[in-house]
Amino acid sequence: MVTSIGIVGLGLIGGSLARRAAASGYEVVAWNHTPRPYEQAGHDGIRCVETLADLAQAKPGLLILCNPLKAMPDVLARLAPVIDPAATTLSDVGSVKGMVREQAERAGLKECYVGAHPMAGNEHSGFEASDPALYDNALWAITVDGSTQYRRFLTVAQFIVNGLNNELIVLDDATHDRAAALISHMPHAIATAMVNELCASPERNIAAALAAGSWRDMTRVALTDPSRTRAMIDEDRTNVEALLRAMAARLLAFAGDLHCGDESAIAAYFAQGQPFRDFKAHGALTQTMRATSRDAPGGSAQWYKDTRDIDPARWQCELFESARQGERITCFLDNYRVAIHRQPLL
Amino acid sequence: MVTSIGIVGLGLIGGSLARRAAASGYEVVAWNHTPRPYEQAGHDGIRCVETLADLAQAKPGLLILCNPLKAMPDVLARLAPVIDPAATTLSDVGSVKGMVREQAERAGLKECYVGAHPMAGNEHSGFEASDPALYDNALWAITVDGSTQYRRFLTVAQFIVNGLNNELIVLDDATHDRAAALISHMPHAIATAMVNELCASPERNIAAALAAGSWRDMTRVALTDPSRTRAMIDEDRTNVEALLRAMAARLLAFAGDLHCGDESAIAAYFAQGQPFRDFKAHGALTQTMRATSRDAPGGSAQWYKDTRDIDPARWQCELFESARQGERITCFLDNYRVAIHRQPLL
Repeated sequence: MVTSIGIVGLGLIGGSLARRAAASGYEVVAWNHTPRPYEQAGHDGIRCVETLADLAQAKPGLLILCNPLKAMPDVLARLAPVIDPAATTLSDVGSVKGMVREQAERAGLKECYVGAHPMAGNEHSGFEASDPALYDNALWAITVDGSTQYRRFLTVAQFIVNGLNNELIVLDDATHDRAAALISHMPHAIATAMVNELCASPERNIAAALAAGSWRDMTRVALTDPSRTRAMIDEDRTNVEALLRAMAARLLAFAGDLHCGDESAIAAYFAQGQPFRDFKAHGALTQTMRATSRDAPGGSAQWYKDTRDIDPARWQCELFESARQGERITCFLDNYRVAIHRQPLL
Repeated sequence: MVTSIGIVGLGLIGGSLARRAAASGYEVVAWNHTPRPYEQAGHDGIRCVETLADLAQAKPGLLILCNPLKAMPDVLARLAPVIDPAATTLSDVGSVKGMVREQAERAGLKECYVGAHPMAGNEHSGFEASDPALYDNALWAITVDGSTQYRRFLTVAQFIVNGLNNELIVLDDATHDRAAALISHMPHAIATAMVNELCASPERNIAAALAAGSWRDMTRVALTDPSRTRAMIDEDRTNVEALLRAMAARLLAFAGDLHCGDESAIAAYFAQGQPFRDFKAHGALTQTMRATSRDAPGGSAQWYKDTRDIDPARWQCELFESARQGERITCFLDNYRVAIHRQPLL
């Protein structure tokens, strides 16, 4: 287990991570593109340094890039000559994983790189909005490929679960990026399209007056800074394009069913999503049971808990399969044995 | 101003309305398809009757149909022979207006009918979930056509604004139904399509694990009883069909822009919705100023308030235009003069 963490970028995500790591007993050293948050970060036990080279030369066991994705190539190029890969494992928190791995490879840093993406965040930004509690119960995706060394993975994974008390699943980059497109990037593009549709309507003022909860919730993400949304979609554009075409086909087929009054096709449209409704209902139940079992030491609701041994010869395949089976790693019992939660399957 | 209100259907919407009217001093008489809520309703000052005929024979000044839309033709057919149109004005709270007017006409009740649709509701149902506060600050759409008598309109409108302390706009049925399709019915169909897309994905379990706030908010309405969503879309299917085709065209065009890397088209896609972002920001400001001016008697923030005189010869056109201009009627000062709030325009 590493004892020192380097953080690049003290925004909402990086600042919250640095503060949580410091509060969990790690030695935390950070660099930010402006020293504005340094005084406040110092009060939280974060040692801030003047240059990226200073950060690399502190030789943190794990260095996590929390800068915006668009700054990634520049940050990687500046780190490459100064980082000591023997001492430091490199990771990041970007919402797209395949692209970052390629950039790390171009910078000659692929060998010490492991991808990571915490499901944490809100609509705010900057260190002043940071909060260690942002990571409470957070799930992380860790992404690896065939060349990732197990010890590098272990460095990142043990920090997340044993260090931060978070949970994780292990994915390949492509699966991560397709899944993120499905549940985040594509929906952002659709929320934007709905807002565009409203703005183009001659009835826009009447429609806006009548808008209630469903419209508010479905367009909320279109209200955030459009340049941030654009960057996110841009970085995952192949997956987003495919999903938008698939969604358009669904909408056109349903429009056709409405036009023809094909009642059985209309019924099928509303029935297709039933597994997700059941999954959500089951998930709510699981959450309740889980909260109860945590609150009751020695409680009996252990049915969802299990352990898994990891075969070092085929750990990647095993952990990819574990994620597909709805398992989440909650603790490393030793280097090759983990505690897991098993979630309901969809 | 009427003093007695008849309510058909003591579900969430009708029950809350009956309780609010009773609490506001109206004599309220109600009929429900089952007497289950009668005892509880009696405690709230609502007189419940055994049959629809009993309700009509009580000759309430305003009778409001709060039954499900699918029961409307049957309820209207049973009311037609027993209602006294000289004494009673008929209205409803359905989320689709053109269809209800046609049904009222087929039942021979068009002459005493005025459409209404309160923007109120939540995910619950039944009288046990009812709450007079459901109508706090509610906006109603009242729908009229060329044959609507002003005195009928006035009966409904004065009950809503002076009686319930709510606000209203006046629309024709077609405008209402197009606007409702845009901000509610079409988004419900799209939320369903997103859930269908997830269920069809080989990565559904990983995607569901990674799903966070944007997915939760954009699919919330797909979790409610699909038969209710289906009925709502079904009743407004021509408008929903057109909007789904328009949305599909937007998604395909954007997918094409992503494919070609047409950066200026991509930028335009994110810029088109800017008026709605500005409108929401302005609207939040207006709400704050409005709340402030209410809290401060004699406060100076009266800039958004105004009055409007209604010309009885062309009241429909005037009030349609008023709605398009972002005005909401908040009070009848006399039969031909109203107080209004002017909202920011989109």
